Amino acid sequence: MKLLEDRIRAQGIVKAGNVLKVDCFLNHQLDVALFREMGREWKRLFADRPIDKILTIEASGIALACMAAEAFGDCPVVFAKKAQSVNVDGDVYSVKIESFTHKRVYDVFVSQKYLGPEDHVLIIDDFLANGMALEGLAEIVRLSGATLEGIGIAIEKAYQGGGKAIREKGIRVESLARIAAMDDLTGEVEFVEA
Amino acid sequence: MKLLEDRIRAQGIVKAGNVLKVDCFLNHQLDVALFREMGREWKRLFADRPIDKILTIEASGIALACMAAEAFGDCPVVFAKKAQSVNVDGDVYSVKIESFTHKRVYDVFVSQKYLGPEDHVLIIDDFLANGMALEGLAEIVRLSGATLEGIGIAIEKAYQGGGKAIREKGIRVESLARIAAMDDLTGEVEFVEA
Repeated sequence: MKLLEDRIRAQGIVKAGNVLKVDCFLNHQLDVALFREMGREWKRLFADRPIDKILTIEASGIALACMAAEAFGDCPVVFAKKAQSVNVDGDVYSVKIESFTHKRVYDVFVSQKYLGPEDHVLIIDDFLANGMALEGLAEIVRLSGATLEGIGIAIEKAYQGGGKAIREKGIRVESLARIAAMDDLTGEVEFVEA
Repeated sequence: MKLLEDRIRAQGIVKAGNVLKVDCFLNHQLDVALFREMGREWKRLFADRPIDKILTIEASGIALACMAAEAFGDCPVVFAKKAQSVNVDGDVYSVKIESFTHKRVYDVFVSQKYLGPEDHVLIIDDFLANGMALEGLAEIVRLSGATLEGIGIAIEKAYQGGGKAIREKGIRVESLARIAAMDDLTGEVEFVEA
């Protein structure tokens, strides 16, 4: 998606250690108008799928998921929570996810009330790198008996193995910007040709 | 706001220990169409204020803030983050916030890049009870030199002291549903008369 690639080129900052900082529009300050356009693009890409629920994970996925929900007829959004909260009771679908960013393992869960066999789910998240978070969310969908229609990603680090591994399982992944390489010395970001 | 009060009456569950569960539309599964209406109501209530940035806190505030941003001309949303992340560097505004729900103290921060003296800020959050989170966010706004135009809340537990204490500091607080009392034995929720 050219709009997103242009924004990454203009405002993304490449840091040592394979870090792309997009704090200023994607995961600290949020550009909701951009997110709305991204939602429309996912809708276009998944137009053939009967999506009626969006699943994401806290925190930065929530903004993208909500703005995308508009394009999918204001369908419900469910966000997976990290670690157990005293305010969630009853039965949950739960998996463990290792976070590259925070260098720790989270228990991630969704209440069984909000995901079940009748749902046709699109998973939305901001980043796809090693794919651990998405594999966890896909496992939650599998546990619930819902149909996983696909995964919509803002930025995929295509040079890491996560996206390849998920696609090889037969899951459709649509990433709006796919990074082929990035260099923290020059600051350059190179995208996969569409 | 009648739409929100009706939804709380229909789907909110009162639990022992002063807990109102609104998981099914507000903070686990999210009703974006309802949030859009809530955003329009905050816009109506704060129509006289030159709001150009919305500040919230992860995680459940993000959805409300993004949907509200639409009503404020797609202004930028900034969300305060809990605990230090390896992906945020540079200078931050930081405060400590005690969470009633999670019974712990968080370090909460906003990058100095995304809040400054030129901003006219509306703080948005899902709950106002003892007001600790909001006092922390208001302090972040004060540290940044921005103008705090007001606070928009979904559900205020008006029988707790938080809202009163914040209003006594001269901060305008608009809560869309104000709970006067709730009873976990009968499940009844009583609202403050408008």
